[in-house]
Amino acid sequence: MPLKLLKAATAAAFVISSPAFADEGMWTFDAFPAAQMKATYGFAPDQAWLNRVQQSAVRLSVGCSASFVSNTGLILTNWHCVSLCVGDLSSADKDYNKSGFLATTLVDEKACPGMQAEVLVSITDATAEVKAATAGVEASKVAQARAVAIAQLEEEACKDDNKELFRCEVIDLYRGGQYKVYKYRTYKDVRLVFAPEKEVGFFGGDPDNFNFPRYNLDSGFLRAYENGKPVKTPTYLPWTQETPKDGDVVFVAGNPGSTERLRTVNQLKFERDFPLQSDLLILSEWRGRLIEYRNKSVEAKRSAESVFYIVENSFKALYGQQRALADPSFLAIKEPEEADLKAKVRADAKLRAEIGDPWADIDRLLAKQQDLFWQYQYLESYSGATSSLYPMAVNLVRLANEGAKPLAERLPGYSDADMVQIQEQLLADAPVYKEIEQIGLELWLSKAREYLTADHPAIKRLLGSESPEGIAARGIAGTKLDDKAVREALIKGGKAAIDASTDPLIVLARRAEADARAINVKMNQEVNGPISQAAERIAAARFAVYGSNVYPDATFTLRLSYGVVDGWTYGGVKIPSTTNIGGYFERASGEFPFVAAPSWLAAKSSLDPSIPFNISTTNDVIGGNSGSPLIDRQGRVVGAVFDGNIHSLGGNFAYDGRYNRTVSVTTAAITEALSKVYKADRLVAELKAK
Amino acid sequence: MPLKLLKAATAAAFVISSPAFADEGMWTFDAFPAAQMKATYGFAPDQAWLNRVQQSAVRLSVGCSASFVSNTGLILTNWHCVSLCVGDLSSADKDYNKSGFLATTLVDEKACPGMQAEVLVSITDATAEVKAATAGVEASKVAQARAVAIAQLEEEACKDDNKELFRCEVIDLYRGGQYKVYKYRTYKDVRLVFAPEKEVGFFGGDPDNFNFPRYNLDSGFLRAYENGKPVKTPTYLPWTQETPKDGDVVFVAGNPGSTERLRTVNQLKFERDFPLQSDLLILSEWRGRLIEYRNKSVEAKRSAESVFYIVENSFKALYGQQRALADPSFLAIKEPEEADLKAKVRADAKLRAEIGDPWADIDRLLAKQQDLFWQYQYLESYSGATSSLYPMAVNLVRLANEGAKPLAERLPGYSDADMVQIQEQLLADAPVYKEIEQIGLELWLSKAREYLTADHPAIKRLLGSESPEGIAARGIAGTKLDDKAVREALIKGGKAAIDASTDPLIVLARRAEADARAINVKMNQEVNGPISQAAERIAAARFAVYGSNVYPDATFTLRLSYGVVDGWTYGGVKIPSTTNIGGYFERASGEFPFVAAPSWLAAKSSLDPSIPFNISTTNDVIGGNSGSPLIDRQGRVVGAVFDGNIHSLGGNFAYDGRYNRTVSVTTAAITEALSKVYKADRLVAELKAK
Repeated sequence: MPLKLLKAATAAAFVISSPAFADEGMWTFDAFPAAQMKATYGFAPDQAWLNRVQQSAVRLSVGCSASFVSNTGLILTNWHCVSLCVGDLSSADKDYNKSGFLATTLVDEKACPGMQAEVLVSITDATAEVKAATAGVEASKVAQARAVAIAQLEEEACKDDNKELFRCEVIDLYRGGQYKVYKYRTYKDVRLVFAPEKEVGFFGGDPDNFNFPRYNLDSGFLRAYENGKPVKTPTYLPWTQETPKDGDVVFVAGNPGSTERLRTVNQLKFERDFPLQSDLLILSEWRGRLIEYRNKSVEAKRSAESVFYIVENSFKALYGQQRALADPSFLAIKEPEEADLKAKVRADAKLRAEIGDPWADIDRLLAKQQDLFWQYQYLESYSGATSSLYPMAVNLVRLANEGAKPLAERLPGYSDADMVQIQEQLLADAPVYKEIEQIGLELWLSKAREYLTADHPAIKRLLGSESPEGIAARGIAGTKLDDKAVREALIKGGKAAIDASTDPLIVLARRAEADARAINVKMNQEVNGPISQAAERIAAARFAVYGSNVYPDATFTLRLSYGVVDGWTYGGVKIPSTTNIGGYFERASGEFPFVAAPSWLAAKSSLDPSIPFNISTTNDVIGGNSGSPLIDRQGRVVGAVFDGNIHSLGGNFAYDGRYNRTVSVTTAAITEALSKVYKADRLVAELKAK
Repeated sequence: MPLKLLKAATAAAFVISSPAFADEGMWTFDAFPAAQMKATYGFAPDQAWLNRVQQSAVRLSVGCSASFVSNTGLILTNWHCVSLCVGDLSSADKDYNKSGFLATTLVDEKACPGMQAEVLVSITDATAEVKAATAGVEASKVAQARAVAIAQLEEEACKDDNKELFRCEVIDLYRGGQYKVYKYRTYKDVRLVFAPEKEVGFFGGDPDNFNFPRYNLDSGFLRAYENGKPVKTPTYLPWTQETPKDGDVVFVAGNPGSTERLRTVNQLKFERDFPLQSDLLILSEWRGRLIEYRNKSVEAKRSAESVFYIVENSFKALYGQQRALADPSFLAIKEPEEADLKAKVRADAKLRAEIGDPWADIDRLLAKQQDLFWQYQYLESYSGATSSLYPMAVNLVRLANEGAKPLAERLPGYSDADMVQIQEQLLADAPVYKEIEQIGLELWLSKAREYLTADHPAIKRLLGSESPEGIAARGIAGTKLDDKAVREALIKGGKAAIDASTDPLIVLARRAEADARAINVKMNQEVNGPISQAAERIAAARFAVYGSNVYPDATFTLRLSYGVVDGWTYGGVKIPSTTNIGGYFERASGEFPFVAAPSWLAAKSSLDPSIPFNISTTNDVIGGNSGSPLIDRQGRVVGAVFDGNIHSLGGNFAYDGRYNRTVSVTTAAITEALSKVYKADRLVAELKAK
């Protein structure tokens, strides 16, 4: 699968007992620390406020957050969250990245291929059920036993619901500390309403990404449809053009993708030296290949736009994470926390007997994980992940193979409910660019041979006497998987159709499957299962020692963060919290990516230069929060979160409230641009309607 | 400057007191441990043997080793050491990488642009003089004071010699433990005699690089000339077609480039997380750009051949180093060694008073180095290093600026003798490919902005309102520095000519110089100088505790390693020491890079398949040793070192005799190929002459 959209953003030293910095925490809606917030800020939201915000918050299947901002399904998110859709809807004749997109009437709103929206409607506890299913199970079978129990719980929780409208998912919180069933209302027809030109949606481009001050209209609008009509969404966030001031309380409701704050220090070092390293190296080479490819022609540049953005953004976010973990002073935040918990467990005989030494157990398992790492990465985790078509082939082969087995024998991630989602993804209508596919497939195959060597038995089976370049060229030229009807026929035909297929990518995926599946099973049995058991014991120790006033690691599920509008001071330089529209024109030097959009230059005299454009706040967020509504104490939407500053990237591991800031585009600037630059009168009227 | 040719190769746990593995050590010729070797193998070379080998060993300016193998200046080295020359001599019409190169008569031998050869003729001690020059000097001025003293010692040591024929250089051994003056006889006209086709010189390509078993004719021949005639070299290594057997003693005489075995553990961690990381990321993106560029046309592929090889080889060597340092079990070799030395210093009151705690001092300095690292890297160390033309511009500007100053105020590396070498390099005749130059210059500028941010004052000064892409395109299109006459005129014109130049690369280098020079000075004053003082104290502690039976870190100067022919066993798999010519044809599957050369296929029936092709030995070598003669106990050359196995890459930090192996191509295979495949009768006759 394509690497996930990432816009990390966060902030100061995570402390286990209770957050060291006032604004730390990505809280679940069923455990919001209202008393703690009230003690700090003299205000906390009541249950009605929380309920309304929860029901207005939207998760997008592209890995972003969003919110309903009208009673007819209008959704606010980021430009960079709709940019994949913008690319999919564009063609050589019409490039919406360049022109922007505005549906002047309802019928002009265009379906985004594969995009789905979801709202979290209920949370119920299932900790006891999941723990019971793995109690007494030997370490190597834990991952599988848990997967089976979870699939059954999900089935049970949604059994009375219309499967087209609702979806149930068990969420692992606190790394095995709690399991909860999250029920989602899903919207499968999501259409594009508005996206600005990339020049203003992503002004400053990669160089300014994760930096501040910023001047980006990184916003876009979508609308949820059902049966060809906009859905009714009576619960939504009211729009305002007011912008909060320094010190004003603000909230972010969204879906932080993942954090590693509860992992052991040695797990973080492993993360730095293996997965992050492996990702950064392949992303760097991929980026280099795409840069030169883009130079070939205008159409090459256009067609590579989306994937290139994802590659650059992922690189920078992951790079920032690795830099944090390479800094001895950053790890020095984590080490005493871990030492404290260990010491408290050791000092309590009963606890010590119950918990044991899960840190030492994890260290031993990390050595095993290291042994398997490169095989797991290149035979399974990355399997064609730098292309779109080959992961389709893998999924088609797996649907056929796993679907033919009883649940208990399937790979995790292939429950019946999972398979419905995979099928839906396989039937999305996104355009495929074969030259870019060939680059991506060749990249994976050539790196697999490089890291595992030409003499590795699995590489010999994968490549035979062919070269990565030859397989990629012939495979992409010959495949018909870019035709949705072909994919549909293969899904319907099941295992027989897959086994009989002569499509070169299906043939390749079939050839790769035994080794890929074997390393997946081995990693789950020998590493992931046993590590999760040890992590459960650490979670139990943490609850026992510090109580429950802690928040779980991010899991791309709905969370609420509170904070205030604030700039920061670093190296003696004071960075103010708020930029304005006038600053955009000042920063535009004229060479890419600092080029002002022609539409803005044309409207310049009518725009109020003093209107706040981008704003920094102390909220604790991370990649996946992109598009989250920034909300004031009245529950009104005052902005859309789109980034974190450069100091935020270590937030994956610890929140540093001194420096880490969330960056949003204001509703004030969005309204001004919609009115004056884009003349989007229909949209403005809908936003302002009460 | 272009990144250095690297072919790391080494071997088992370095132990400070005396090598843990019998064959560990890169010994200087003036301190060869004959008694120790004799105790192990019942044989050690006598002084006559050592003298003859020292005078036959050749260092090449491309970063390789070599040896004289006839009395008329014939030099044996690797194909990959002459491949830059092969590329320089090739053109769109005649690609010697494809066809190979054979001078059938003396007049067909062609000069390699910029290639120089050197022989180490004498070693004299200068430790007292250098230490006196820095005694009592404050830390921030140490690097400069030492540079001045060294320049004066070098001038003094060579003052009676013909500067065209001799060069003197002070070498820092044991990281400040000793300083020695090395006098070299230099040969400035080096010509290509023979190079095989890349298909056999680099069979298996990047995938097989640093792997074994191997089947490479990675060999080439050069000849040293003076006044248009081959030089007389009465001292040379006799040629033999005999190949030593398992357990036979073998030596390697060559120039290991650099090792970090005497650095502190925290310096190694810094190395892993900063310089190695930075190199790997830029090499990965560069590689990606070059892969796509090469796909453009046959000529693009040909013209990028040399740089692409250097990028891939450097990546793999550095990657292997980083992997070693990321493996906790590898660092576990180093940590107890350091703890032991520290404990012994602490336990001895007198020593403790004298040595202090240089490890803690270095830790504090590493924090400073980390602060300055990215600025130093992108403003100075990498400055245009991914191009050829921009470093010329930097050197031209520096020659003018530094040359106008007294020695004590110059940057290190700009003594009068250094400047003569820089001028010679600037006047080499290598071809320049402007499209590749543009990729390289753009890469540096864009990464500089990425890592330092668009808001960094030095980046603002470097780029102005332009983009990296714009500056690179206009700069490379407009520059005349690819014309040697233009460079020569700028050298002759001195500072006035440089200041008046409107060449866009000179203009850019002038604009960059103040910030580049400032960070260079700052790094030397605040980090390098103080670290070198602390390292001197560690070196002193080591001599005091363990005596002098230790070898210094590699410094790309002449060393002798002893060992035996041996394979190894890893993960239960036994790898034999020796491959043969028949195996080459068996491994050739037909798709690149496993394609047999047509010349070999044509000669196949005449070749003896049982002749040893490549051979693995326990010698302790590293990048820079490429091309070194493999020598038997009689002092005959039996092979040319061209690689290390995959386990050897951590040899930069520690030698692991269980697994680390040096890989050579045998003189037996070279002779067979020259006779049967290439019909190089003139060359074979010269090699066999007594």
